[in-house]
Amino acid sequence: MSTNVSPAHDPLLFTPGPLTTSLTVKQRMLRDIGSWERDFAVLVSDLRSRLLNVAGLPRDGEWTAVLLQGSGTYGVEAVLQTCVPPKGKVAVLANGAYGERLAQILEYARIQHVVLRDPEDAPVNPETLDQCLANDRDITHVAVVHCETTTGMLNPIEEIGTVVKRHGRIFIVDAMSSFGGMQIDFEACAIDYLVSSANKCIEGVPGFSCVFCRKALLLGCAGWSRSLSLDLVAQFKAFEQDGKFRFTPPTHALLAFQQALAELNAEGGVAGRNLRYRRNHSVLHSGMLRLGFSPFLDSPFQSPFISAFHYPRDFEFNFGVFHEKLRQRGFVIYPGKLTRVDTFRIGTIGRIFEADILALLSAIRDVLAELGIIMTPTLDALQTMPECE
Amino acid sequence: MSTNVSPAHDPLLFTPGPLTTSLTVKQRMLRDIGSWERDFAVLVSDLRSRLLNVAGLPRDGEWTAVLLQGSGTYGVEAVLQTCVPPKGKVAVLANGAYGERLAQILEYARIQHVVLRDPEDAPVNPETLDQCLANDRDITHVAVVHCETTTGMLNPIEEIGTVVKRHGRIFIVDAMSSFGGMQIDFEACAIDYLVSSANKCIEGVPGFSCVFCRKALLLGCAGWSRSLSLDLVAQFKAFEQDGKFRFTPPTHALLAFQQALAELNAEGGVAGRNLRYRRNHSVLHSGMLRLGFSPFLDSPFQSPFISAFHYPRDFEFNFGVFHEKLRQRGFVIYPGKLTRVDTFRIGTIGRIFEADILALLSAIRDVLAELGIIMTPTLDALQTMPECE
Repeated sequence: MSTNVSPAHDPLLFTPGPLTTSLTVKQRMLRDIGSWERDFAVLVSDLRSRLLNVAGLPRDGEWTAVLLQGSGTYGVEAVLQTCVPPKGKVAVLANGAYGERLAQILEYARIQHVVLRDPEDAPVNPETLDQCLANDRDITHVAVVHCETTTGMLNPIEEIGTVVKRHGRIFIVDAMSSFGGMQIDFEACAIDYLVSSANKCIEGVPGFSCVFCRKALLLGCAGWSRSLSLDLVAQFKAFEQDGKFRFTPPTHALLAFQQALAELNAEGGVAGRNLRYRRNHSVLHSGMLRLGFSPFLDSPFQSPFISAFHYPRDFEFNFGVFHEKLRQRGFVIYPGKLTRVDTFRIGTIGRIFEADILALLSAIRDVLAELGIIMTPTLDALQTMPECE
Repeated sequence: MSTNVSPAHDPLLFTPGPLTTSLTVKQRMLRDIGSWERDFAVLVSDLRSRLLNVAGLPRDGEWTAVLLQGSGTYGVEAVLQTCVPPKGKVAVLANGAYGERLAQILEYARIQHVVLRDPEDAPVNPETLDQCLANDRDITHVAVVHCETTTGMLNPIEEIGTVVKRHGRIFIVDAMSSFGGMQIDFEACAIDYLVSSANKCIEGVPGFSCVFCRKALLLGCAGWSRSLSLDLVAQFKAFEQDGKFRFTPPTHALLAFQQALAELNAEGGVAGRNLRYRRNHSVLHSGMLRLGFSPFLDSPFQSPFISAFHYPRDFEFNFGVFHEKLRQRGFVIYPGKLTRVDTFRIGTIGRIFEADILALLSAIRDVLAELGIIMTPTLDALQTMPECE
């Protein structure tokens, strides 16, 4: 990646993000705008309003969307650092690396917490939570990852939210990899705080996260934040006061995001995008089965956003080599992140269409042949999706 | 700023950042690269190595440059949250809003501190610090802003550093607005931690900050951070282990930064850039004097990066109107941030040249005429800089 080399186009990214974005989204970054300008305040206000729309929340109601500089993790940490009171305690539901990250944030912030763990191939369990909340009155907040990117697992946030609500606790959802790619019913899920990021299903470029919450609930947290940078209350107040960020915002990423939101809208909003992602996933899933791969998750909880696959059995499989050979053909896949099983991951979000998935599958077939890896698909697999032939 | 409107070019930004950047810097963002890719690790390593070079520090020695997602303030907060031990205490030298911000970060993080304040028009005082450190053995760290962006004041970090070193304390310098725009002698200034940002004198786009420190000193802080996102030790370890960010990096801003560093080099490095900024400042300063404006600072401590000017005397001066009329002419200036005096600010950094400053001065003259503001320059002013006529 020397300064003088600029390839005609980059490999397609089949990853959980940063993703392949549209050229038009990136082209919006060919500008320099001042962060103190009225135009910029209008941009920020527009983004926040459009985000509420994507979330299916009323634009001028009790909800707000707060943007925060940094990666998605910063947004999740901001909620925990800002919104859990000094004597608060958080129950974390975890079945993967991102659930564990929630616990890690609380550990760093010296916030009391308990972690309810489930295996990586099972959804988090509402019943365990129910018992936990019944027995521990100190727990004030419950936090869970919606789409656990480790596996692609979609956790049952509606069932979890119902339990949280019944016990009168506050519910925090890390919807990094799902928001914008599927409809999330905030009311049915009893969500109090939901966090997502610019560079996931909205298909923007990385640089900031977004937190959805009710204004009154957020304002009640004033004075609790352990971090100036991550103080969501102060960030919200600055937006409401004059539409500005407290500290230098990623102006270029914000401009790109406006275009990304317009393109989401042009695709038919969340419903339209969900359709494409499900199609991407379905084509990938059948194609991988036909190539002889086994998906890690075998459940209705598999999301259409990212999938984990087992390494080929009975072969010496070097993921680095496999990945590199695919990259040379213009396709970037993602390593696994599971603790006990060898997997790799393929994302199906970003500016990626069915034709790209089919091209990826062909490339995988070629690379397997080159590596001398011959797998036998199951009969079931051979009977699905003839178009992937 | 509707989605469909894309002006031929944006107004020039005479601000402290985000700045006007070169088109070539922005064009580097027309790509999507994966953050797990080897190419990306090479990019990150290249940026960190080039930054050490800009800092005048050995590339393979005891120093390191750690990049952190978020604005410059995140970088400063990361140093304070990570590198001050649980029982540490920080002396903050403050003569403006950014000095106060250091204290605010410590307040949030519940870290013991004392603030040594000087007036906004005076440099911070090494003697006050000397007495303070002699009297308070609990103080472990001293923090100061190099160029106080509130006024453009350059604080005497070499004198301060000498005092800090004599007392055996650790010295933290917020060099947000100065790094890359002037040579900073880390050794002479006895700097332990220096923080800067992508979108200041390096002329990149916003999205991350950079912390310079000695590896051994940083590693000794393991376990102290109160924040996962802002844990500099963990961030450094991840870079050293596999060249990757712990959390989604602003890939586009990082690509732009590589180009910005190449363009800094092409300009003759820090010395060349400093020459241009000093020229910009000098042309601005004389021109403003000739127009009848008085600079807020009248001292050798005025930096070439940003300057504050008093509102015109004897006139009803509405900064909003003044700013807007200049903006309509393609020039964006910046509001003041002083507590007791009405000022506005003009930045002289970014992709801004002498011709741009002259054009700005002409526009200011026209706007003043339009507003009926007639000021009388001093005789001294009239005798300076005939080329600004």
